[in-house]
Amino acid sequence: MADKAAAKAAARAKFEGVFDTIADELLAYLKGEGMPADAIEWYKKNLYHNVPGGKLNRGLSVVDTLEILKGSALTDDEYFQAALLGWCIELGFFLVSDDLMDASITRRGQPCWYRMPGIGNIAINDSFMLEAAIYYLLKKHFRQQPYYVDLLELFLETTFQTELGQLIDLITAPEDDVDLSKFSLEKHHLIVVYKTAYYSFYLPVALAMRVHGIKDKAAYKAALDILLPMGEYFQVQDDYLDAYAPPEVLGKIGTDILDNKCSWNVNTALKHATPEQRQILDKYYGNKKDKEAEAEVKKIFSSDNVDIPGRFEKYEAESYDKLNKLIDQIDEDKTGLKKQVFTSFLEKVYKRQK
Amino acid sequence: MADKAAAKAAARAKFEGVFDTIADELLAYLKGEGMPADAIEWYKKNLYHNVPGGKLNRGLSVVDTLEILKGSALTDDEYFQAALLGWCIELGFFLVSDDLMDASITRRGQPCWYRMPGIGNIAINDSFMLEAAIYYLLKKHFRQQPYYVDLLELFLETTFQTELGQLIDLITAPEDDVDLSKFSLEKHHLIVVYKTAYYSFYLPVALAMRVHGIKDKAAYKAALDILLPMGEYFQVQDDYLDAYAPPEVLGKIGTDILDNKCSWNVNTALKHATPEQRQILDKYYGNKKDKEAEAEVKKIFSSDNVDIPGRFEKYEAESYDKLNKLIDQIDEDKTGLKKQVFTSFLEKVYKRQK
Repeated sequence: MADKAAAKAAARAKFEGVFDTIADELLAYLKGEGMPADAIEWYKKNLYHNVPGGKLNRGLSVVDTLEILKGSALTDDEYFQAALLGWCIELGFFLVSDDLMDASITRRGQPCWYRMPGIGNIAINDSFMLEAAIYYLLKKHFRQQPYYVDLLELFLETTFQTELGQLIDLITAPEDDVDLSKFSLEKHHLIVVYKTAYYSFYLPVALAMRVHGIKDKAAYKAALDILLPMGEYFQVQDDYLDAYAPPEVLGKIGTDILDNKCSWNVNTALKHATPEQRQILDKYYGNKKDKEAEAEVKKIFSSDNVDIPGRFEKYEAESYDKLNKLIDQIDEDKTGLKKQVFTSFLEKVYKRQK
Repeated sequence: MADKAAAKAAARAKFEGVFDTIADELLAYLKGEGMPADAIEWYKKNLYHNVPGGKLNRGLSVVDTLEILKGSALTDDEYFQAALLGWCIELGFFLVSDDLMDASITRRGQPCWYRMPGIGNIAINDSFMLEAAIYYLLKKHFRQQPYYVDLLELFLETTFQTELGQLIDLITAPEDDVDLSKFSLEKHHLIVVYKTAYYSFYLPVALAMRVHGIKDKAAYKAALDILLPMGEYFQVQDDYLDAYAPPEVLGKIGTDILDNKCSWNVNTALKHATPEQRQILDKYYGNKKDKEAEAEVKKIFSSDNVDIPGRFEKYEAESYDKLNKLIDQIDEDKTGLKKQVFTSFLEKVYKRQK
């Protein structure tokens, strides 16, 4: 277990080492364009404040996937290519603009970028500049590859999908206008698939598949058919843990109930609540300032008929089963895929506690 | 003159007719992805509020340029392709996010998008969704073309350049922190070239060149070498007219002095002001609430030694001369370009009064 943790830390450190190179390249581009020193310094701060420092799961997935597909250790060049694509995913994840739209206060233990002195709404342009970096880097490092245009399209398309998910989320569950009649498990499914599954689950694997030279459309379809439900399962876990994981294990205090989040918990509760319970949910859900309201909602979540913990346990077992069956159907020879890409992904998230 | 105006109106109406098709395609994409009705309606409003309704000069330039390059009337298919690219330019021009960052009140005679009921900071995601539409449309209509990747790169690169220009502008001339020591004609040059010239002048022509099949790198370089200074000249005019055009001709009341804009006027004034005049500029420039302060600044602009009108007249004559010389150097046979692309552009802007 200690070995595993040490290996994970080493993998992370190696991956982080690539970020300096990437940042240097981007800053050199600005310098080459004759940008003034204060603009270069600003972009540097933007990059370092917002891109490294997270869990980096998405970025590391590209490296892990390419290693499994290849079946042996990556060369330095292959590692760099995969890590660069991983960092592009991290660059594109809309954290800066999401924090602005959600009026978030902190991220990763530091103030959100827009709340740093002198930033404010300039963060909007800064978030566009993080996106733009992706395409600069792709051109610089992949222009000569036959799959260059596929990389561009993967980023552009999953970005649009993520924005669609964000739109549905924003108009379904605005923090200041609670209306549970807009919620449903179907809405939750759409939000989760579009906002999370395409970008955080499909994209890393599809990028590694492109670099590995997989061209067969059916292979991408097979990967998508597994990774979208896996992403959904992951997000349902996230939602569940927000209300049920001990904060000391989770590393944060869940606020989904207070923040009117369109989570799996509340949508499942809405489906099974009695009319009386529904009234209480309508009254108390998303009531930001009231800790007692939150307790009332949690009481309903854990009531005998709603039983979020029991239903989650069942959902988790079924998802695990379904995903394993999907993985089992992969024809490795025909697609060039490896089942292990998906099982290793799945084992990382199955029954996670945080 | 009446004929010319009628022709212009007809060209505009034809171009506008294409927008409905484009919007329908985008909304059909959302529908096909299973997006809920309220999200589709939201995107429709976003598209129609923010994309048509402007002067459309950028978009129309693609059509005009392709016509000139071809040397004869466009077929329906060619017209549609050029108009679609023109609309992509209009989609990508950051009006929504710029208005948010500038805290603007109205645009084109209606409230800015973020100020419409229920929108607010969701406008940030909406502005990303206008950008994303470009790449959806390019894929749908140009995927089979050999120059598809060139179109992608043209949009991606000029977008990054525009963001760089916006960054310099935002940190050089924040509305709430006036510091004229950050200003200079060199800074103004950088802002204008990056924020305006690449996107509004080079991009439309370069897109039409790609559709026309021009591949020679030197041809793009030649176009850039003319269109960047032409864009700069256009922006200097814009700045000049903001202070000197009669509002009834200009169609709006200039606010650059009140808003601390890093304009050609103030940068030229800073270069030629006496120490006493400089003190007045420091005291009064960018003083949003004070109309008398604006008058003081204008007095300096028109003083004998600063003489913005005289210097502008000289600048305009020199620019016109320089641009015509550059255009004259084009080797039409070698590059596949036509001088008329640039002369017709130039004649549209030379000595414009609004």
